[in-house]
Amino acid sequence: MAALAIRIDDPSDPRIAGFVAIRERDLTGREGRFVAEGTVVLRVLAQAGAGGRGFEAEAILLLENRVAGVADILAGFPADVPVYVASAAVFDAIAGFHMHRGVLALGRKPEGVTAADRVAALPSESLVLVGCGLSNHDNAGAIFRNAAAFGADAVFLDETSCDPLYRKAIRVSVGSVLMVPFSRGLPAEELLATLAGAGFEIWGLSPRGEVPVGAIPAARRIALVVGAEGEGLPQAILSSFRTARIPQRPGLDSLNVATASGIALYQIALAMGRID
Amino acid sequence: MAALAIRIDDPSDPRIAGFVAIRERDLTGREGRFVAEGTVVLRVLAQAGAGGRGFEAEAILLLENRVAGVADILAGFPADVPVYVASAAVFDAIAGFHMHRGVLALGRKPEGVTAADRVAALPSESLVLVGCGLSNHDNAGAIFRNAAAFGADAVFLDETSCDPLYRKAIRVSVGSVLMVPFSRGLPAEELLATLAGAGFEIWGLSPRGEVPVGAIPAARRIALVVGAEGEGLPQAILSSFRTARIPQRPGLDSLNVATASGIALYQIALAMGRID
Repeated sequence: MAALAIRIDDPSDPRIAGFVAIRERDLTGREGRFVAEGTVVLRVLAQAGAGGRGFEAEAILLLENRVAGVADILAGFPADVPVYVASAAVFDAIAGFHMHRGVLALGRKPEGVTAADRVAALPSESLVLVGCGLSNHDNAGAIFRNAAAFGADAVFLDETSCDPLYRKAIRVSVGSVLMVPFSRGLPAEELLATLAGAGFEIWGLSPRGEVPVGAIPAARRIALVVGAEGEGLPQAILSSFRTARIPQRPGLDSLNVATASGIALYQIALAMGRID
Repeated sequence: MAALAIRIDDPSDPRIAGFVAIRERDLTGREGRFVAEGTVVLRVLAQAGAGGRGFEAEAILLLENRVAGVADILAGFPADVPVYVASAAVFDAIAGFHMHRGVLALGRKPEGVTAADRVAALPSESLVLVGCGLSNHDNAGAIFRNAAAFGADAVFLDETSCDPLYRKAIRVSVGSVLMVPFSRGLPAEELLATLAGAGFEIWGLSPRGEVPVGAIPAARRIALVVGAEGEGLPQAILSSFRTARIPQRPGLDSLNVATASGIALYQIALAMGRID
């Protein structure tokens, strides 16, 4: 159970310095921290910490009228995680903007896991999602949410993709970034070579893919590769691996990458018997 | 072809008053206008105007370095649509924020079409999407994008849903709001009764739906009904009609409503032979 709530009346109180102006600061970079926003993500953070996934809360900051509503979640954090409480005026002055959710937690980023170690830890039957050039935090978060919904065992992001531990990505993922194991940082070619070497059948998703996603055959290990909104996957990847498309009306623009990844994961998870 | 570009050097020039502070103003309400942002949406607006869909541009405002890039699109607008051009400093001063896209058009909203008239105009084989309580502009826009991708004939929004002609909804829809016929404003019960009366098989989408979406049988006319993120569809609707679910891992939260609508529309469009 987390400690009793500590009242904060001064936005410059050094104890809550970590929460100051969180919207503007690049916490995930140099500072090595991440922000969990809202009740749903706070609950996931408590579970992820308890589950030994390396995501540990450093401090929690609540709007005074939210304390009672999250009492059961606070009980899931270790006793040494301080819980700070503030009035709306003080809370907004700390955060630097009006945060109607009134629920924030600051965590320390765990050590990154290398793609090779992540691959080595995968079960013999695996479904993984690979993102190349996913620079949009909303899309990155949405893709993790889909990965969780369809039981993907891990997400791999290449070196040109954004950090999914960015505040907004975690929020859009409804906390899935803290649940689905991931690794980020290799060049795409190296990442895909590692997966191919580990027996993964690699399928690139593209509007010009060879087969409809419903025709992707079941396999012991499948990696679905998605590219950035707009540009899609680089030609070097499309020509090195098999490709699949989502059947759709010819039109102005393809599906959003998050929706496309959801449909493709759904079809592959059905084929692999992971959902029914 | 639109007129030659008119240079604007003063942000308070009355000719561009319609573009002032567009992010804050509720243009779609009392003012009866909508904003198209970005090259892709501008192209759709030109096509929608030319296609007689009632979406007519009143004026176009471009950042000076974007003019050459959109010349072919400007050619699709009537000659009496003024095209204004400004430097980055003047453009941002007009819009009230930094708009890196540098492409804006102001349109006048067409008369709303009643749901009854919209239903009466549908082809004998139809797939429509119904949104109840969709208050989030991003989700509303994303749902129109999916509707366009899978060839839905119309979108119906109930009285509690937001206006899809809001700036951000149009942008997220990549212009699909201007392409897919829609009607908004009836109470959900009345809307669904109208569709049922017109021979539509009505399927509510819910995490607790009776059958998986892949088991929805083909029919001449199908209406897929989706509810708000979080709350989902009201029980009164779920108990009045058949319901379908998207198979997924038991977990913390269901899929995002836009992704869920995309998967369900994909499956129904496959069943109806609209995509292959």
